[in-house]
Amino acid sequence: MEAASPALSRIGLAGLAVMGQNLALNIADKGFPISVYNRTISKVDETTDRAQREGQLPLTGHYTPRDFVLSLQRPRSVIILVKAGAPVDQTIAALSAHMEPGDAIVDGGNEWYENTERRMVEAADKGLLYLGMGVSGGEEGARNGPSLMPGGSYQAYSNIKDIVEKVAAQVEDGPCVTYIGEGGSGNFVKMVHNGIEYGDMQLISEAYDILKNVGGCSNSELAEIFDEWNRGELESFLIEITADIFKVKDEHGDGELVDKILDKTGMKGTGKWTVQQAAELSVAAPTIAASLDIRYLSGLKDERVAAARALEEAGFKDDVGKVKSGVDKKRLIDDVRQALYASKICSYAQGMNLLRAKSVEKGWNLNFGELARIWKGGCIIRAVFLDRIKKAYQRNPNLASLVVDPEFAREMVQRQAAWRRVVGLAFTSGISVPGMGASLAYFDTYRRARLPANLVQAQRDLFGAHTYERVDIPGSYHTEWTKLARNK
Amino acid sequence: MEAASPALSRIGLAGLAVMGQNLALNIADKGFPISVYNRTISKVDETTDRAQREGQLPLTGHYTPRDFVLSLQRPRSVIILVKAGAPVDQTIAALSAHMEPGDAIVDGGNEWYENTERRMVEAADKGLLYLGMGVSGGEEGARNGPSLMPGGSYQAYSNIKDIVEKVAAQVEDGPCVTYIGEGGSGNFVKMVHNGIEYGDMQLISEAYDILKNVGGCSNSELAEIFDEWNRGELESFLIEITADIFKVKDEHGDGELVDKILDKTGMKGTGKWTVQQAAELSVAAPTIAASLDIRYLSGLKDERVAAARALEEAGFKDDVGKVKSGVDKKRLIDDVRQALYASKICSYAQGMNLLRAKSVEKGWNLNFGELARIWKGGCIIRAVFLDRIKKAYQRNPNLASLVVDPEFAREMVQRQAAWRRVVGLAFTSGISVPGMGASLAYFDTYRRARLPANLVQAQRDLFGAHTYERVDIPGSYHTEWTKLARNK
Repeated sequence: MEAASPALSRIGLAGLAVMGQNLALNIADKGFPISVYNRTISKVDETTDRAQREGQLPLTGHYTPRDFVLSLQRPRSVIILVKAGAPVDQTIAALSAHMEPGDAIVDGGNEWYENTERRMVEAADKGLLYLGMGVSGGEEGARNGPSLMPGGSYQAYSNIKDIVEKVAAQVEDGPCVTYIGEGGSGNFVKMVHNGIEYGDMQLISEAYDILKNVGGCSNSELAEIFDEWNRGELESFLIEITADIFKVKDEHGDGELVDKILDKTGMKGTGKWTVQQAAELSVAAPTIAASLDIRYLSGLKDERVAAARALEEAGFKDDVGKVKSGVDKKRLIDDVRQALYASKICSYAQGMNLLRAKSVEKGWNLNFGELARIWKGGCIIRAVFLDRIKKAYQRNPNLASLVVDPEFAREMVQRQAAWRRVVGLAFTSGISVPGMGASLAYFDTYRRARLPANLVQAQRDLFGAHTYERVDIPGSYHTEWTKLARNK
Repeated sequence: MEAASPALSRIGLAGLAVMGQNLALNIADKGFPISVYNRTISKVDETTDRAQREGQLPLTGHYTPRDFVLSLQRPRSVIILVKAGAPVDQTIAALSAHMEPGDAIVDGGNEWYENTERRMVEAADKGLLYLGMGVSGGEEGARNGPSLMPGGSYQAYSNIKDIVEKVAAQVEDGPCVTYIGEGGSGNFVKMVHNGIEYGDMQLISEAYDILKNVGGCSNSELAEIFDEWNRGELESFLIEITADIFKVKDEHGDGELVDKILDKTGMKGTGKWTVQQAAELSVAAPTIAASLDIRYLSGLKDERVAAARALEEAGFKDDVGKVKSGVDKKRLIDDVRQALYASKICSYAQGMNLLRAKSVEKGWNLNFGELARIWKGGCIIRAVFLDRIKKAYQRNPNLASLVVDPEFAREMVQRQAAWRRVVGLAFTSGISVPGMGASLAYFDTYRRARLPANLVQAQRDLFGAHTYERVDIPGSYHTEWTKLARNK
């Protein structure tokens, strides 16, 4: 504790759960003196102890909001890292009582963007600046270099620009941070990032499912496959850690730990919000939505066990788990790699188009190439692939969809035969590939100049007089379908 | 105009667009004297004229809210059929000024259920009763017998029970109306009904797409196929009208009108709300969601045309529209019928489970068998199939999913081979079947006791310390995956 120190800190951080501690230590590690505060005092001591142990970092702990705020240089910048929702409001209330006009609050949580926009207005009433800053990379990223998505007050951003640029992950084209835009754009972008992350994880689990249950691959083969994939176009954090997972032995028994893990997945609010916003903005995001659906269904473990039994009683022969004879394993592995890559492109296309729709609605002027760039390091979806997305948007900032970028289009065309083989094989084998299937259906819908929607529109006109347009003559038409059909 | 008549009407209806006119005429036709009112006076005269022409029905028009309300027997019941949202509030304000404690307002629009719950409280402050009543069946249903979904004040329902039971469509097991439950349950059930309707229409359009583009079926063959399907397990309003649609010739040119209709579909709020509520309640509803996604994508006609061109330039060979050689047309038709039926079961399972989740959340005690029964007639999704759903819930009111009802389970098992063939063929042929694919993936996820979600949970534990459970030992675990994987 150096509360008696006369030197003021450059920045403050309130909320010292693991993420908060790690981000504070990261900031101190980069040479920026930082003050920290937490309502539960033991967390303060824990953090100052760590600061000592991890290299006598310039970090001071404070036990009251007032001491904490007054320990900061003006204009003050305070990062808050507490649970989204009411705790953020409570923390702001406690701290802002001691802050002065020109000071800034930076919320680093996974907050709903509209809450940030509300707080921005409330802060402005007191002359305070406000930033909603998405932080991705988990605990490890927070300590060693996260991807940061700050949106809101540009002045608040400018005040900490030098800090966040040092603290963020560094990639060859700069630090993984950029000013996202006004309002709640930083939170919104982080929300969609998380939706994309859900999609990536779902697609990887489908690849695993096929390789294991159709291809008969063992865990050690899977580790090798993912290691190899991580040296190619799929190179990414999630592929890398997946390879690691297959290597971990079970301490409590034989074989690898992955096989002993219960197949139930939890989730957070950001994935749900992404799906709801996609509906709100009339943007198709079926791959991301599928990843959420499967998390819900995975949670119904008891129901699934009962369903398996009920269907067996009804005569269902489940040959999942029985390796298909006649499958060329080497080709299957190569096909699955291509299917995963093509499916991933479609998932990112959905996420980027959701961001575009919101950017238009809110006037945020999001720079999609920059978003792809700051996701190249630090965050969970970091991948070599994001550099190709960055370049696609640099080639054409108004790209309608990643799918039609000439480079990606060529990649999709090259991979579509394998992609169709994998999805077809999975569906006929009883392996569920909701994510890959949703991506392929998305591709096959978006790339078709003519859809069977003419029939749907005819139905709507028949029963609801909704009218229709024609392909050949302008105007809006209504037809007495039933009368004409039955009079002939 | 019989405003001078001393006899008071049994019920009133305000809002005389086509739906309102038709419902008022239907009520009058069943022998219940009705008063009608509309802000635009010409609509009142239009309705009274129609009442005369359609059999001197007991209907009186009124030009002011006061005259209208005072023309009704007490306790008064007033049905409102105006656009959802602010117009409903305005109409309530105008009418309730003249209403007295014990009178009831019945909103027949596609209203967001929370708006109904808000108005219910506001009405109660004035001693008024309130019902939110979903009305399905379009213009034709409103005139000749709709499906009615009234929820809210049971007293308000009791006051008009004799009327709505006569006015609703009649099927062999009763009128297509029942008291749904408290609060906004009537609107919520109607919302999910519409979501299911979207799903049905999407699945039918996919069947059309495959039969036309893979099977090479002509419109007259399609008309025959749907006519035949309408004599079997798929018998329903939507299959019947689809057959009709294929028979209508184009007045402006050669061939059938369906081919000239622009492939862009509109939509209303209820579908979007259904998807958002599914996410809110953590219920997987991927088939319904897919139907919405495709409506969005169908709307991007210009983008799709451009995408088709961009992919062609990238080397894509689109053989959609080229009939596959070697396809056994007769078998394909039979397979598609089975795929459509099995996909439909999954879509209804999703809708019913969404209703169940909401019923639990709100304590509505929904009776799913009764819901299926009142959808058997009057509404757009009316189908013989709904009788099987009714029976499934009668067998087991706590059924976890339609998919595990013994009857439906047997039907799914019988159809799964054909279903898998169709979905596999479509995906490999480049025909998008987002709805059928979503249904099959849903089935293959729900029926599996073991999913690859163990991998996702391992990933979450690795990068976010989210912990996991084991299949064999109770408790919550965290593992240092990376360290263990790389130390070996």
